[in-house]
Amino acid sequence: MKTCDIAVYGLGVMGSSLAKNIMSHGFAVAAYSKSPEERARFQRDTGADTVCTTVDEMLEGLQSPRCIFLMITAGRPVDMVLEELCPRLRPGDVILDGGNSFYRDTGRRYEECRKQGICYVGIGVSGGEKGALYGPSMMAGGSLEGWKQTRHILQTISAHADGKPCCDYIAAGGGGHYVKMVHNGIEYAILQLIAEIWYFMSSTLEMSGEEILSCFQSWKKGGLDSYLMEISIQVLQKKDKDGSLLVDKILDVAEQKGTGKWTMQDSLERGVYIPTIYEALSARNFSGKKRLRMQGSEQLQATVQKVFVENPEETLGNALLLGMILSYSQGFELIAKASAEENWAIDFGRLIDVWSNGCIIRSRLLAKIRQTGILISADEPLLLEQGFSWLKELEPALRETVGKSVLSGTPLPALAGALGYYDYYRMKQMPVNFIQALRDCFGAHTYQRTDREGHFHTNWEE
Amino acid sequence: MKTCDIAVYGLGVMGSSLAKNIMSHGFAVAAYSKSPEERARFQRDTGADTVCTTVDEMLEGLQSPRCIFLMITAGRPVDMVLEELCPRLRPGDVILDGGNSFYRDTGRRYEECRKQGICYVGIGVSGGEKGALYGPSMMAGGSLEGWKQTRHILQTISAHADGKPCCDYIAAGGGGHYVKMVHNGIEYAILQLIAEIWYFMSSTLEMSGEEILSCFQSWKKGGLDSYLMEISIQVLQKKDKDGSLLVDKILDVAEQKGTGKWTMQDSLERGVYIPTIYEALSARNFSGKKRLRMQGSEQLQATVQKVFVENPEETLGNALLLGMILSYSQGFELIAKASAEENWAIDFGRLIDVWSNGCIIRSRLLAKIRQTGILISADEPLLLEQGFSWLKELEPALRETVGKSVLSGTPLPALAGALGYYDYYRMKQMPVNFIQALRDCFGAHTYQRTDREGHFHTNWEE
Repeated sequence: MKTCDIAVYGLGVMGSSLAKNIMSHGFAVAAYSKSPEERARFQRDTGADTVCTTVDEMLEGLQSPRCIFLMITAGRPVDMVLEELCPRLRPGDVILDGGNSFYRDTGRRYEECRKQGICYVGIGVSGGEKGALYGPSMMAGGSLEGWKQTRHILQTISAHADGKPCCDYIAAGGGGHYVKMVHNGIEYAILQLIAEIWYFMSSTLEMSGEEILSCFQSWKKGGLDSYLMEISIQVLQKKDKDGSLLVDKILDVAEQKGTGKWTMQDSLERGVYIPTIYEALSARNFSGKKRLRMQGSEQLQATVQKVFVENPEETLGNALLLGMILSYSQGFELIAKASAEENWAIDFGRLIDVWSNGCIIRSRLLAKIRQTGILISADEPLLLEQGFSWLKELEPALRETVGKSVLSGTPLPALAGALGYYDYYRMKQMPVNFIQALRDCFGAHTYQRTDREGHFHTNWEE
Repeated sequence: MKTCDIAVYGLGVMGSSLAKNIMSHGFAVAAYSKSPEERARFQRDTGADTVCTTVDEMLEGLQSPRCIFLMITAGRPVDMVLEELCPRLRPGDVILDGGNSFYRDTGRRYEECRKQGICYVGIGVSGGEKGALYGPSMMAGGSLEGWKQTRHILQTISAHADGKPCCDYIAAGGGGHYVKMVHNGIEYAILQLIAEIWYFMSSTLEMSGEEILSCFQSWKKGGLDSYLMEISIQVLQKKDKDGSLLVDKILDVAEQKGTGKWTMQDSLERGVYIPTIYEALSARNFSGKKRLRMQGSEQLQATVQKVFVENPEETLGNALLLGMILSYSQGFELIAKASAEENWAIDFGRLIDVWSNGCIIRSRLLAKIRQTGILISADEPLLLEQGFSWLKELEPALRETVGKSVLSGTPLPALAGALGYYDYYRMKQMPVNFIQALRDCFGAHTYQRTDREGHFHTNWEE
C-alpha cells in the first residue's frame, strides 16, 4: 500500500463522501470502517486500493505525523474510538472529529489528548452529503498545531467563495463544534420560517401551487437568494407519481437531532434570547402530537377571520427576509456571548467567510453582512448595527404578516418570535418593574429604583 | 435542654420562619445555624432555649429517630452539610431538604442516604416568608419512611384548604422538588402574564391608575381570584413618598433564580412545549439589556397603530384568565411527561390539593380544575379535557388582545405564546411536511408519507 496523506475513519454517507472528495483532489486516503459492508461498498464505488480492514493497517499506511479524520456518530462512539486509537498514536499525531459532537465533549477530548501530545481538532462539517462530496463548509477548533498540519488538505477540499476557502480555524477547545451547533440552530430557524410562509400562502391565503412557486422564484432572484430557497423551489416543483405535489403527501411529523436542542439549552445557560430557534425546535417536537392535534382541531373552536394580503409576493418576501436577518442576529448574539464567556475571541468576519459557501445556511444575506464590514460583538446585536438600518424597511411587512396570522388563527410562531425579538429591542421600558414589585411583595426579593442606587424592600400591605 | 421533636438547620429568612411556625404548634425545635448572627437573632426573636451552637448539640437534643429539616441554600452547601451530618446519623434518622434543590441532585442524595439507611426527603416549600411562618404549601418526595416519620409535624404546620393539609407525599426520588420546580415555572408565567396585561393597559391603552386598579379589583371577585391578583392590587395601590405610584419608580430589570431556567431545560430534554414559561424566563433575561433597549428604541422604527379595546375589563380579564389556564396546562403537561418517564405515578388530584393554599400560584382556578375531577395524564393536556371546554369562550378575548398588541408594537410574548400553544392544538396539519421535504433534499434524512407506511427518500433535483 502506498503511503497515505490522511485516514478517514468511518465510511457512512458523510464519511465515504468526504473520503471521495479528498481522493478527487489527489490525496491518498487510508479508508477504514468497522463495518465490512461499508468497506466493501466504498471499495466498489471507488476502486481504491487503500481500504483498510484493521485500525493498525490504517495507521501503518499513514505518513508521519499521522492524521485521522473521524466521520462517526457523535457521542459515546467517539470516546470508544479514542480509547482504541490513542494508545496507538504518537505525540504530534492528529485526530479530526468531523461529527456533530457536543462542544463540551470536544473540549474535554481536546484536553485529554493534549496530555498525550496528540493534536485533537473538533471540526464542524456542514453541507450534507453533497457538501461532503463536492466541498463542505468546515469550522475547525481545538489544537492549532493539528489545524496547521491538516489545513492544506482541508482548505483544498472545502467549498470556496470568491477564491477563499470556506474552512478555517475558529476557536480553541470545542469552539469549532460550538459554531457548527449554532449554525444548525440558525438552520432550524430558517427552515421553519420558510415552512411557515409557505403554509400561510397555501392554507391561509389559499394561493395555488403555481402562484407560490412564482413568488419563491422571484424571491430567489432578490435578497432571499440562498441555498435553502433554491431547494425550496425544487420541493415546490417535485411531483408525486399521480401528478400532485409530493410535499402534500409527506406526513407533518418531524424528527430533531441533538444540535437544535443543544443550541437552546446553551442559550438558556447563557441567558440569550433566541425565540425563533426555540419555536423552530418546538415545532418539530410538537408535530409528534398528531393524534392530539386531530382531537384539538375538533374540540377547540376559534373566532378567526378570513384574511387578505394585497401584494403577497412583496409582503411575505419582506417578512421572510426580515425573519432570516433576525435569525442570524439571534445566532450571532449567542456566539458572541459564548465567545466572550469562553475566551474564544471569535472573528466574525472569518466565520462568515466559512459560511459563505458549502453550508446549508449560505445566502446572499451573509455576503451582505460580510460586506457591511460588521464587527459583531457581545455588546451590539446585528439588528442594531448601523449598516443594517435598512431592515426597518422590512418591518411593516413582518408586522402585517404576524398580525394577520393571529386573526386568521394560523400560528406562525417562529415569525412571531422574530417580530417579538425586534420589538423587545424597541422597549425602553419593559413591564418587569411590575414583576419586581410582586416578587418583593411575596418573597422580599428587593428591587432597584430608577431614581437612586441600591436595593430596596417595601412592606406592600401597609 | 428538653428533648426536641425536630431540628431546623439554617436560620435565614425561610428557616427561621419555618422554625417559628413549628414551635407555634407546640413542637420543640432544636434550632441551629452556622451563623452566630442568625442564631442570636433567632434566640432574641423567640426566646427559645433550644438554639444550638454545634451540630452535635443539635443532634443530642433530638428524640429518636432524629429528624433534621435543612433550610439552607440549594446546591453545593447541601452536599457539604450532608458530609457533616451523615457520619453522625443512624439508620432510620430523617433528613428533610426544604430548599429549592435541583431534583436530580435530590434523587442522587436520596440514593446515597438510602445506602446508609438514612431517610432522605426532598421537600418543595412554597409561600415565601409568610407562607413559611403561617403555613406553607409543601411537596414531599423521596423516602416514604422519612415522610411517615415527619408527616404529623409537616401536615400540622402547613397551610390547609377545606380542612385538608396542603402538604403531601408526591413521588419517589426527586419528585417533590420536581413539582416545586414546575410550580415556580408556572409562577414565572403567571407573573409575566399579569405584568403584560398591566403594561398593555397603562402604556398602550393609556388607562389611568384608577381605571386599572378598578379592573383588577373586579377581576379578583371573579374567575381570576388568586393570591397573585391579591398582591397585584396591593402593588397598584402602593404610593411612593411623593404620592405617585411606587411601581413606576421601580427599575425594569429583573433577576431570575435557578428554578425557571431548570424548568425550561427540563422541558427541552423531555420535548414538552411550554412557550409561556419560556417567554416569562426570557423577559427577565432580556430586561438586563437596558442600555441596548434604550439604543434600540431610538434606532428601530416601527409602523404601529393606536389601538382601542371596547371593553377592557371584560376582554383583558378573559385574555388573562385563558393565559393563566394555558400556563397551568403547560406546567401539568410537563409534570405528566416527567411522571411517566420517571415512573413517579403522580396523583394530580393530590398535587392540586397541595397547591390549593399556602403557595404562590394558589387560585380559584386550581379549585375549579380540582372540582372538575380532571384526570390529567401524559396523553391528554388540560386544555383538551372535556371539563374545560368552557375555555373556548375566552379565546376571542385572547386573540383580540394579542392581535392588537402586534398592531400597536407592544410585545406581549407570554400572552402570544399562550395563544400559540392553543392554536397549535388546533392544527390538524402543521407545515412540518415542508421541513421534512427540505431535510430529505439536503441531508437525505428521509420522510414518512400520509398514504403508506415506511421511510422514503427522493432525488428532488430530477
